[in-house]
Amino acid sequence: MAPGQGFGIDEVVAQLRDLRNQSLQSRRRSGRPPKLPSRVALREIIDGLAAAMFPNRLGRPDLTVEGIDHFVGHTLDVALRSLNEQLGRELLFASNLDSLSEQDAARALAITREFAATLPRIRQLLDTDILAAYQGDPAARSMDEVLVCYPGIAAITHYRLAHVLYRQGVPLTARMIAELAHSLTGIDIHPGADIGERFFIDHGTGVVIGETAVIGRNVRLYQAVTLGAKRFPAGEDGALAKGDARHPIVEDDVVIYAGATVLGRVTIGHGSTIGGNVWLTRSVPPGSNVSQAQALTDAVIGVAGS
Amino acid sequence: MAPGQGFGIDEVVAQLRDLRNQSLQSRRRSGRPPKLPSRVALREIIDGLAAAMFPNRLGRPDLTVEGIDHFVGHTLDVALRSLNEQLGRELLFASNLDSLSEQDAARALAITREFAATLPRIRQLLDTDILAAYQGDPAARSMDEVLVCYPGIAAITHYRLAHVLYRQGVPLTARMIAELAHSLTGIDIHPGADIGERFFIDHGTGVVIGETAVIGRNVRLYQAVTLGAKRFPAGEDGALAKGDARHPIVEDDVVIYAGATVLGRVTIGHGSTIGGNVWLTRSVPPGSNVSQAQALTDAVIGVAGS
Amino acid sequence: MAPGQGFGIDEVVAQLRDLRNQSLQSRRRSGRPPKLPSRVALREIIDGLAAAMFPNRLGRPDLTVEGIDHFVGHTLDVALRSLNEQLGRELLFASNLDSLSEQDAARALAITREFAATLPRIRQLLDTDILAAYQGDPAARSMDEVLVCYPGIAAITHYRLAHVLYRQGVPLTARMIAELAHSLTGIDIHPGADIGERFFIDHGTGVVIGETAVIGRNVRLYQAVTLGAKRFPAGEDGALAKGDARHPIVEDDVVIYAGATVLGRVTIGHGSTIGGNVWLTRSVPPGSNVSQAQALTDAVIGVAGS
Amino acid sequence: MAPGQGFGIDEVVAQLRDLRNQSLQSRRRSGRPPKLPSRVALREIIDGLAAAMFPNRLGRPDLTVEGIDHFVGHTLDVALRSLNEQLGRELLFASNLDSLSEQDAARALAITREFAATLPRIRQLLDTDILAAYQGDPAARSMDEVLVCYPGIAAITHYRLAHVLYRQGVPLTARMIAELAHSLTGIDIHPGADIGERFFIDHGTGVVIGETAVIGRNVRLYQAVTLGAKRFPAGEDGALAKGDARHPIVEDDVVIYAGATVLGRVTIGHGSTIGGNVWLTRSVPPGSNVSQAQALTDAVIGVAGS
Amino acid sequence: MAPGQGFGIDEVVAQLRDLRNQSLQSRRRSGRPPKLPSRVALREIIDGLAAAMFPNRLGRPDLTVEGIDHFVGHTLDVALRSLNEQLGRELLFASNLDSLSEQDAARALAITREFAATLPRIRQLLDTDILAAYQGDPAARSMDEVLVCYPGIAAITHYRLAHVLYRQGVPLTARMIAELAHSLTGIDIHPGADIGERFFIDHGTGVVIGETAVIGRNVRLYQAVTLGAKRFPAGEDGALAKGDARHPIVEDDVVIYAGATVLGRVTIGHGSTIGGNVWLTRSVPPGSNVSQAQALTDAVIGVAGS
Amino acid sequence: MAPGQGFGIDEVVAQLRDLRNQSLQSRRRSGRPPKLPSRVALREIIDGLAAAMFPNRLGRPDLTVEGIDHFVGHTLDVALRSLNEQLGRELLFASNLDSLSEQDAARALAITREFAATLPRIRQLLDTDILAAYQGDPAARSMDEVLVCYPGIAAITHYRLAHVLYRQGVPLTARMIAELAHSLTGIDIHPGADIGERFFIDHGTGVVIGETAVIGRNVRLYQAVTLGAKRFPAGEDGALAKGDARHPIVEDDVVIYAGATVLGRVTIGHGSTIGGNVWLTRSVPPGSNVSQAQALTDAVIGVAGS
Repeated sequence: MAPGQGFGIDEVVAQLRDLRNQSLQSRRRSGRPPKLPSRVALREIIDGLAAAMFPNRLGRPDLTVEGIDHFVGHTLDVALRSLNEQLGRELLFASNLDSLSEQDAARALAITREFAATLPRIRQLLDTDILAAYQGDPAARSMDEVLVCYPGIAAITHYRLAHVLYRQGVPLTARMIAELAHSLTGIDIHPGADIGERFFIDHGTGVVIGETAVIGRNVRLYQAVTLGAKRFPAGEDGALAKGDARHPIVEDDVVIYAGATVLGRVTIGHGSTIGGNVWLTRSVPPGSNVSQAQALTDAVIGVAGS
Repeated sequence: MAPGQGFGIDEVVAQLRDLRNQSLQSRRRSGRPPKLPSRVALREIIDGLAAAMFPNRLGRPDLTVEGIDHFVGHTLDVALRSLNEQLGRELLFASNLDSLSEQDAARALAITREFAATLPRIRQLLDTDILAAYQGDPAARSMDEVLVCYPGIAAITHYRLAHVLYRQGVPLTARMIAELAHSLTGIDIHPGADIGERFFIDHGTGVVIGETAVIGRNVRLYQAVTLGAKRFPAGEDGALAKGDARHPIVEDDVVIYAGATVLGRVTIGHGSTIGGNVWLTRSVPPGSNVSQAQALTDAVIGVAGS
Repeated sequence: MAPGQGFGIDEVVAQLRDLRNQSLQSRRRSGRPPKLPSRVALREIIDGLAAAMFPNRLGRPDLTVEGIDHFVGHTLDVALRSLNEQLGRELLFASNLDSLSEQDAARALAITREFAATLPRIRQLLDTDILAAYQGDPAARSMDEVLVCYPGIAAITHYRLAHVLYRQGVPLTARMIAELAHSLTGIDIHPGADIGERFFIDHGTGVVIGETAVIGRNVRLYQAVTLGAKRFPAGEDGALAKGDARHPIVEDDVVIYAGATVLGRVTIGHGSTIGGNVWLTRSVPPGSNVSQAQALTDAVIGVAGS
Repeated sequence: MAPGQGFGIDEVVAQLRDLRNQSLQSRRRSGRPPKLPSRVALREIIDGLAAAMFPNRLGRPDLTVEGIDHFVGHTLDVALRSLNEQLGRELLFASNLDSLSEQDAARALAITREFAATLPRIRQLLDTDILAAYQGDPAARSMDEVLVCYPGIAAITHYRLAHVLYRQGVPLTARMIAELAHSLTGIDIHPGADIGERFFIDHGTGVVIGETAVIGRNVRLYQAVTLGAKRFPAGEDGALAKGDARHPIVEDDVVIYAGATVLGRVTIGHGSTIGGNVWLTRSVPPGSNVSQAQALTDAVIGVAGS
Repeated sequence: MAPGQGFGIDEVVAQLRDLRNQSLQSRRRSGRPPKLPSRVALREIIDGLAAAMFPNRLGRPDLTVEGIDHFVGHTLDVALRSLNEQLGRELLFASNLDSLSEQDAARALAITREFAATLPRIRQLLDTDILAAYQGDPAARSMDEVLVCYPGIAAITHYRLAHVLYRQGVPLTARMIAELAHSLTGIDIHPGADIGERFFIDHGTGVVIGETAVIGRNVRLYQAVTLGAKRFPAGEDGALAKGDARHPIVEDDVVIYAGATVLGRVTIGHGSTIGGNVWLTRSVPPGSNVSQAQALTDAVIGVAGS
Repeated sequence: MAPGQGFGIDEVVAQLRDLRNQSLQSRRRSGRPPKLPSRVALREIIDGLAAAMFPNRLGRPDLTVEGIDHFVGHTLDVALRSLNEQLGRELLFASNLDSLSEQDAARALAITREFAATLPRIRQLLDTDILAAYQGDPAARSMDEVLVCYPGIAAITHYRLAHVLYRQGVPLTARMIAELAHSLTGIDIHPGADIGERFFIDHGTGVVIGETAVIGRNVRLYQAVTLGAKRFPAGEDGALAKGDARHPIVEDDVVIYAGATVLGRVTIGHGSTIGGNVWLTRSVPPGSNVSQAQALTDAVIGVAGS
């Protein structure tokens, strides 16, 4: 390209600078532009933690009995130090200070340490989830296959890690981890949800589980199930709703088939089965068997051309 | 593997060559095999443009006041030169010539330059989208969180960039960018759609917005909403339909809840609310509040074992 | 961090070791931890095979007439050798032996060789799929665009490769390949399904096709279509169901619109059209035109505020 | 770092810009800044050509009989296309035009093609060099070891490739390749030198062979040997000397031991031996055995402290 | 490998830990293990600074008039921030404190800023060096070739950058940069040496220039020249010698041919020529022409077999 | 490039194939092409072992007390497994069999295990070398600087590792490691040489130490020192000389200054000093102080123009 025939970059840079400064002002962050946790770093952290929990299957295929604990220890060390740094960014961002306070640095360290201590418990929970998947899917041939193949297990792994962080008071990091799973699997579990052991999601694309949902033990979901909030009335001030319990409670041993939608703070009693595509906005007692009204299954069949 | 025990590669290569040549002949491209824009290059271009528009949050966390404009300028320079090259490939492909004509080279350059000039406007639009998300989701804690977490924002960013290119007459590049977003987020917005400011998609998996859809200001969608075409009658010649306005018009201030399906060139009047799972193939006046017929919400509940 | 203020890694490592050993014992794999095929390797293998089948469009844009067969040959060589190794891992895993037996090594080689020989046939099938997409979507401008843009084509490419492997007796590798497509596209086709030529899936997010589904020639699906099994009765022993034909048969020339759900071993007769969101659990004769019962399309419309 | 406390980058950028423009003006290249061949690209080209010539030992260890020619063909294709591009840069640079002329593009292609045709001959020559090293070094255990271990062989490989290019009229590319070898091995052979078969350099660090040196068959050199030009008289106009034959002629079957220096257009007759550290500026007849004057070997030995 | 047949890693780890702790104790660094500047980071910093000074030739070949300053600015920004961090490590290491003091952080910043301001001057000096090389070597075809090909220029570029840092009081970083050049080129210039403009080293392998050497303007050296210290008398306490002026002074317009050795604080008067392989330990007046004693050039020549 | 205008690759491939096959035949390796240890793998192995021995200074700068042993253990595990594989290649190559025998696999494992056990001893030796360098160079400021800066230490580290392997009967791997050091530093130490503790090489470029050299404790060398074999008489059969003790013995506490050449199986008595550029082919008693004959230091000095 000859001189003078460029892309007009200088002008674009100047305009973007003005917009950036206006935006920082409007967000009251002039001079303190946000430095958020890094998606790429969180991706590596989660992969590292998963590899540490399941080193043979998700770590390296060449691990030996002798080397495996060194791999686990080193992988944890790298992942936890990086997590500690990302948590520092979240706390700095939340503090609105110019640099990380000593107090927040100590808090990031305390959270990381406490989080590390929960990893064995998370591995135990995930073992129950894997077992549930193996027992719940006639196509599953082994628990090992379940761990490496099933997107539901990937999503639950992200969820169980993110949920601990959410509870520890770092919701932004937790949410970013949840979105990593969402992008990979199409399964969108808010890290605030509370989910018991032996949880299984089959296929999974389109599943949405809201922030205040509560799910018991041994629950099974299929693709496109929504456990959501009811619509917010027009004109409502959204801020008021924050933190309200607005998503369903699903008790133990419930199965919810594909495409079912359950909205609002309703309770699905234990042992219930919710049929495919059901739309449910009220509570049902234990042992319920909910299916679509007949009208919905009466498809109208005509012969083409008739 | 011992000699003579190979995979039969030579035979496979020969057969694939024959098929390739037949296919080139049938597409009338013998001697001019298509060299299309590169997915990998477009991925880097979009990431670069997003980083240039939002350098603190999507660029590098270590940027300082002094260095940020250099980062923005260099990132734009690299991204725009690569885009220019990809556009050259699309124009060559479309021209069916052996090599890029001077005219097409000049056109690629003109498109790139004009595209660059729209980036500040795109950043402005995205700021309105982010604000809408922040205001529209009770779970959102800050606008910064929205930008880095919400898949809807990622999809809209891709869309707003692709839409400009689509209008500039490079639909293949535009479409490839749209598919990058689709793969990341499960949200499929055709770059031909026309979408106003303050647009928000929550959760988003399974959303489909068709080529001729028109969406006003301040519209909010949830996961699995379809703004599609009606079914094409059996036996129709698909080519005739090309370019026809066949997707919905959604006016300002409309909310469409999860799973709703709106098909055909119908109009959703401003301020309307479309309920979850609604199936709609006719226009509704402004201020409408559309929900499923009662039958659909009457799920049949029985107690298991009864 | 000062000494003594660490993350407690040693303790976590020790606890994870105990859990890992318990898990290996319970899976009867003590001393033989599973070394499964690698997701990363399979990703590279599939990309290599796709590049070999479509080198101009999915390989390298700089290929010349002289160099293209060398590229194809070398790319195949690398991909097939890696596949051979992954198959060895699956067979070892299945054998429950300490190391790959000579018999299994020979079997991996035989499978790889036979698989290689099917690649030209797979390319032919994919050409019919691409043609069907081009003819079936009014927005498609060229067959080349279809190949590089349409997620449906990406999913079908993975499926057609995985299906051959599934039939050859390596279902774990096949399943992992299917999940790669699922993660990329939101389309979940079990490699056991049997699908004829000229197959087209538009948009595709949320499509699920079960293990024993049978799909004829010239079938077209839209997003969120499920070809699934009926619910399993409560208390059933899942293992009994394994391998049973439990998913639909879709005959030639059928179109199934977005969100339709077809469950169980039912047959959709040739030339039928299944409307959007239809829920279907019984067979329909050839030429049927199935739409939702009227109730479902009668949305209740009210004016907001009224 | 707080705003206003930066590194002063803008000022440095401005000053560097001024210096750059002055330098371009003084080199009469304003508006045509030099775009030279890329060191990184040449490194990859040479590695590729070496791998193509010796695929088992320098290519990939996993090559099979079936795959090896595909590897060689593809590796050559990539390397030659890249070489063609680098040659275009050299010709453009030499032409002082704004863009590559058609004539120069054709010339780059012709050079590349002719160069490719010499590769088998170069491999033959290198086989003689390897054999000479194997026979000439009592420490060599196999010819395979020689090829992968000996820096002399690496340097000669670079030289033989660069020499062909030098003769073809692309001396800058040739020189850059020679410097790649120099950096790797400490052996500096100007690509203009003319060297016969069965050439061996042992250890090699510090060897310098000048542009117009002529070396016959079966010559062996040790480390730190210089085949250089005599000093240029003070006040001489360097430009006059260009191209003059100013370096030694070394006939067949000569051995030159470590540290020997031979300067000027002298001839070392065939079958001669030049001793270590010899300083030689006149011709010697065939069969000479040159050693340092006795004085030089009479080191003065005293006992410390005496 | 079966369990129990490992490499004995745990035992090696334990022994290495003990040795490490003993070593830290003996160096009085227990609890403060040294975290030194990173070789890899310094390699990238130097490459970045060279690219910023010579962006067309050492930066990216695709730079345009429009983009070049953005490239330079961003490259400087990245390099200087990384340098600032490395300098912080050196200062921390030197301070023997647990963490970087505010004072040292400020000092690192001040050094970096002052260093940045010298870059234009360094570019000017390098332009004189390149010109000297071009004029001094009959084989040089253009100044551009000199910059990209000549190892002497690479070594001097490293030296000129390192020398500024050495003078600024960060000798470890300076030394590490010098060793990067040494490894690349075989030229070992201590960053403490003081070297005037128009400096040229041809071939260069084996050149050694000591810490207190002083070299004037327009000096030319060939390979294997040593400007060193005289031997240290046996029994001397090395620490006393630190910082003493113990290397030669070379005045303006001196040429020193290959292999010459000049030792001790002697002065080579301006305009002198030192012949190849000369061994010199005393000063020579301006205009001297030093060559080896005749004995050294009287090689003894015999005819083999005689 | 138009079809028919290619590089002639097919012809080159065919010719290279013929040459390759001829070469394999002449080396009696038809059907068993050599698969040698990989340079790249050995580079990573040595870097890993050095990092394990000196994790704070050569490993990662972010290591903490808690994480360091995990880093060391994992780094060793990776390096030793890779070494084991490379050793398998050398043994297979030496065996001339088609695949690695069980016996050789066991031998590779035994060598690796024994090699691992020597690492603490090697670290101890290197600590003595570092201390010697620190004490022997007035320019050295700390032992930490010595480890990260001095090429002599890098060369000795490679040597000490390679020497163990050489003694264990894997000379090819050992030699390849030595050449890695040679390329990095210009120092060429044959792994067969036997070198005591507290060994120091300053500057180092051009140093050559032969296979059968024996060097005592506390020896110091400068650049370009050769400890070589005497010339081999013309007509000698090189094979006979293999393994003969043909390089010097250097006793404890010897210093050899730059450029000195010591040839043949001579002994330098303990405590001797050998001056710069000395040429020595006979033994000298303990405490000798050897310098050049006076003639050599009598440079002839003239005033230019006189």
